[in-house]
Amino acid sequence: VKEAKRSALQQLLEELHPYDVAQLYRGLPEKHHHKFLTFLTSDQIADLIQELEYEMQIEILHKLGIERSSKVMNLMDNDDLADLLNELSADKIQEFLEVMRKEDSQKIRSLMSYPADTAGGLMNNQFVWIHVNQTVRQAVNKLKEYASFSENIYYLYVINEEKKLVGVVSYRDLLIADEDERIEDIMFSRVVSVSVDADQEEVAQTIERYDFIAVPVVDAQNTLLGIITVDDAIDIVIREANEDIEKLSASGKDIDFNTKATTASFRRLPWLILLLFIGLLSGSIISGFEETLDQVVALIFFMPMIAGMTGNTGTQSLAVVVRGIVTSDVDRKTVFKLIFRELRVGIIIGLTCGALILLVATLWIGSLTLGVVVGSSLLITLIVGTLAGTVIPLMLYRFGVDPAVASGPLITTINDIFSLMIYFGIATAFLSQLQHL
Amino acid sequence: VKEAKRSALQQLLEELHPYDVAQLYRGLPEKHHHKFLTFLTSDQIADLIQELEYEMQIEILHKLGIERSSKVMNLMDNDDLADLLNELSADKIQEFLEVMRKEDSQKIRSLMSYPADTAGGLMNNQFVWIHVNQTVRQAVNKLKEYASFSENIYYLYVINEEKKLVGVVSYRDLLIADEDERIEDIMFSRVVSVSVDADQEEVAQTIERYDFIAVPVVDAQNTLLGIITVDDAIDIVIREANEDIEKLSASGKDIDFNTKATTASFRRLPWLILLLFIGLLSGSIISGFEETLDQVVALIFFMPMIAGMTGNTGTQSLAVVVRGIVTSDVDRKTVFKLIFRELRVGIIIGLTCGALILLVATLWIGSLTLGVVVGSSLLITLIVGTLAGTVIPLMLYRFGVDPAVASGPLITTINDIFSLMIYFGIATAFLSQLQHL
Repeated sequence: VKEAKRSALQQLLEELHPYDVAQLYRGLPEKHHHKFLTFLTSDQIADLIQELEYEMQIEILHKLGIERSSKVMNLMDNDDLADLLNELSADKIQEFLEVMRKEDSQKIRSLMSYPADTAGGLMNNQFVWIHVNQTVRQAVNKLKEYASFSENIYYLYVINEEKKLVGVVSYRDLLIADEDERIEDIMFSRVVSVSVDADQEEVAQTIERYDFIAVPVVDAQNTLLGIITVDDAIDIVIREANEDIEKLSASGKDIDFNTKATTASFRRLPWLILLLFIGLLSGSIISGFEETLDQVVALIFFMPMIAGMTGNTGTQSLAVVVRGIVTSDVDRKTVFKLIFRELRVGIIIGLTCGALILLVATLWIGSLTLGVVVGSSLLITLIVGTLAGTVIPLMLYRFGVDPAVASGPLITTINDIFSLMIYFGIATAFLSQLQHL
Repeated sequence: VKEAKRSALQQLLEELHPYDVAQLYRGLPEKHHHKFLTFLTSDQIADLIQELEYEMQIEILHKLGIERSSKVMNLMDNDDLADLLNELSADKIQEFLEVMRKEDSQKIRSLMSYPADTAGGLMNNQFVWIHVNQTVRQAVNKLKEYASFSENIYYLYVINEEKKLVGVVSYRDLLIADEDERIEDIMFSRVVSVSVDADQEEVAQTIERYDFIAVPVVDAQNTLLGIITVDDAIDIVIREANEDIEKLSASGKDIDFNTKATTASFRRLPWLILLLFIGLLSGSIISGFEETLDQVVALIFFMPMIAGMTGNTGTQSLAVVVRGIVTSDVDRKTVFKLIFRELRVGIIIGLTCGALILLVATLWIGSLTLGVVVGSSLLITLIVGTLAGTVIPLMLYRFGVDPAVASGPLITTINDIFSLMIYFGIATAFLSQLQHL
């Protein structure tokens, strides 16, 4: 009976997608993990492992022991394997590489040498190449040979005598071509490729713009080194979006639902402590205007609104810049056009909100002078805030500074300081007319 | 000579990817657009049009005239066409649909009836289906017949007598199979599909998780209606990320580098005006504590810092929730775990920052009592701020309210109000000890 159950489960597992197997594995209590693994072939474990987080991947390698692990590793996509090994200690890496096939371990070593966020760090070697002089029949035969690992491949890459990439043929081209046609005659020769040191953002953009399923990675001599597939491009797009959101919210790197409280705290604290001291700067500006405040307490009532609004408009502009940089080509013309656009936006929203608050403040406090002070302050701070939210991140981007520095809270805090100086500056100028309040 | 030039240009255009042709078109001054179009076949215009923004698409239709336009429309992917028509006036839609092939116009009409952000609104009908009883040879022949439009297709869908979706075969499966094998024997029968009314987020998640190139869309009876391809999934991921950023920054819908200043202003103003009035609420809280402030002016110096820090920590938590909802499954257990985690984060950062400011405030103002008031206020506001940034968006999500309501500035503003009440509340309680300042 047990044997029958076992084979039924194995059959089920065979029909499931790796993602679903991984969901099953995650759902099991840890004590059953070892048992579960015995139901899977090395091939299935290789698929499963690629769907899991590093902690679980390492746990599996541990449970399998070095020998079975090396078998599984030989079956993994080598970009995923390189990423996994990068998470291990140098000793462990050495241990695993030694039991792998020499040829494989060399490839892994060279993959591990590329920075993780470049094409070299993302590419895998799960591609099939054919020679430009071969026929469709020969290509199909080669494909049948490589059938087991070519599962997720949709293009064949064509190389010439010097092993340079000269063309690409899709499976569809092979299917509808005549068996005796030469590859050279059916291939597409204007191949779009990415350089091995291209940034991951460029890789994702290339795949997205051309609607590719995969893009070949080449070195400076146009030798084919690997491919990057569209599923990696999706992961890059998600990762880049998360980075943008980290920038805008200064939320700290890589915090998700599973991050431990202490880890999450320590990732957020550096930003918070920096912002604490910048916040104190606002306080010291206010203390500089103590006399003005002492005489016109009502000025304080509008302080949070003015500082908040300036922060909000700055964040709105910042969001446009941060996302725009990802999807547009930023040249001098675009930059000036954008700054000019945001200037006009600042004027429009400044006039609208300024007029509104002039009315409200005049009615609330019963002083037209105060209304004018608050209204004109808001007009100016909104224009300055909008421009700061546009110009600061663009300048950082222009000078190649990590734009993470231009995080949302930082812009907000800078705008806080601007807005307080403008507001209290104007109020002090009108002080004699306000003193009766 | 002119003829030779023309044919050279046409050959070049033929070899370019649609994306590059679109870049060329965008780069040309408008007066040359008409001329440029005469170099392209209807097929190429259909490809070009799909890479352009709506404004340019409509401009092209205008330049081509109704007859040529309808030819081009017949060659477009019908999901792109439905999206384009949705941008036109009812009259124009009618006009175009009338000159199209009846069969096509009916399909377009039905596509246009699905909401744009559901599987139905995203799917296209550029798929090839085969019958479960056919052989590999028959399938390949069918494919050759559909060669011209099957360019970007990588799977064949298998249906049974009742036209239900029962399996899927990749081109690779066809290539490596024997010509006489039956489709039924080589197909994968555990097909993952999405329902026609599935949300776009679910569609993108399915494609991303299973690393699919395309996912079939079915109705409640499992009848195949269309497919959604991975390039659409990338677009969805980018759009969803942009929406999250809009939420976090309240930056207004769809503002990019090319949006006009007036349009951008009017999209941002509703939020800003709402936030203006909420900001005034903070002001009225302060005015409620006027007496306390009058007696201890130094309290004002720490106000921006406390309000700012509470806003920052709330935004940090909000960012984790907003991104987490996209990539994780949110169940009751996850929610409680997350809230408890953020509570602990709030305590850790509250204790750290509270201790720090106690020291700074005591030294700056020279009063340990004030240091204790500011420090304990920051401890409490950071805990409350962190929880508010976590609980509010989760509650909105739970009750199905559009989480766009929980935008970053809104959380910031709510936290502003909390922090002022806590800070001035504590200060008022200690008022008698503070009065000597």
